Amino acid sequence: MSKPSHKVFLKWHIIKEILKLSRDIPSFKLFESDKVLAFLDINPLSKGHALVIPKYHGEKLTDIPDDALTEILPVVKKLVKATGAENYNVLQNNGRLAHQEVDHVHFHMIPKPNLTEGLGVGWPQQKTDMDALKTLFADIKSKM
Amino acid sequence: MSKPSHKVFLKWHIIKEILKLSRDIPSFKLFESDKVLAFLDINPLSKGHALVIPKYHGEKLTDIPDDALTEILPVVKKLVKATGAENYNVLQNNGRLAHQEVDHVHFHMIPKPNLTEGLGVGWPQQKTDMDALKTLFADIKSKM
Repeated sequence: MSKPSHKVFLKWHIIKEILKLSRDIPSFKLFESDKVLAFLDINPLSKGHALVIPKYHGEKLTDIPDDALTEILPVVKKLVKATGAENYNVLQNNGRLAHQEVDHVHFHMIPKPNLTEGLGVGWPQQKTDMDALKTLFADIKSKM
Repeated sequence: MSKPSHKVFLKWHIIKEILKLSRDIPSFKLFESDKVLAFLDINPLSKGHALVIPKYHGEKLTDIPDDALTEILPVVKKLVKATGAENYNVLQNNGRLAHQEVDHVHFHMIPKPNLTEGLGVGWPQQKTDMDALKTLFADIKSKM
């Protein structure tokens, strides 16, 4: 595929993904800057459930350059304050196994007002194996 | 309480919280800069489960100044690359209801290698009510 065609494909792909995320952006846009957009999720888990996305297109977090991420967490803070959430989860899923459904990086800010609404957190904690952790640590550390 | 006493209390509190988070920092520290620390979680949900924390002490995300958050997501990216995770969740919990157990802001990077290991994501999606969303939008938008 030639470079221009790839660019056109990419542009179409970005627009399609952002539209899938945000059929609602025109009416529910809460914040916009050069680098990020924030808007209400129209399929909320709780009242005030909102999304922050980088405008730079990438499927997973590692596809986004650092400077396109700088504003994400400050804007999540703005959403928390504006919704008045006291208990809340900030979640960003990568890959189908990890519950990602739209292939453009997005951060959920999900208020947790009570046990039934908001994010359900399953925590299948593993038995601590210090020897395995030490080996794993050496491996990961060597790649940082 | 006088200012100095409060400072001493705060310092002790910070150290206690960071220690609770990271009995493992001395041996399992993966990254450190002026503003953040990253280390392996010693009670992992999956192989490679790691944490990134701001050094600035705050219980919830809104307690942390923006400039203490800038490096968090870039360091999460480093962890993803070093562990080789392809599917993964980035999660930051705020408040007991939202599954926060240690009162110092921490970001989990949790690889999701298969259905049983890693984060369990419960998604109790609510019925979309466009009228309620429009009212909510106007309210939140006015506070952004």
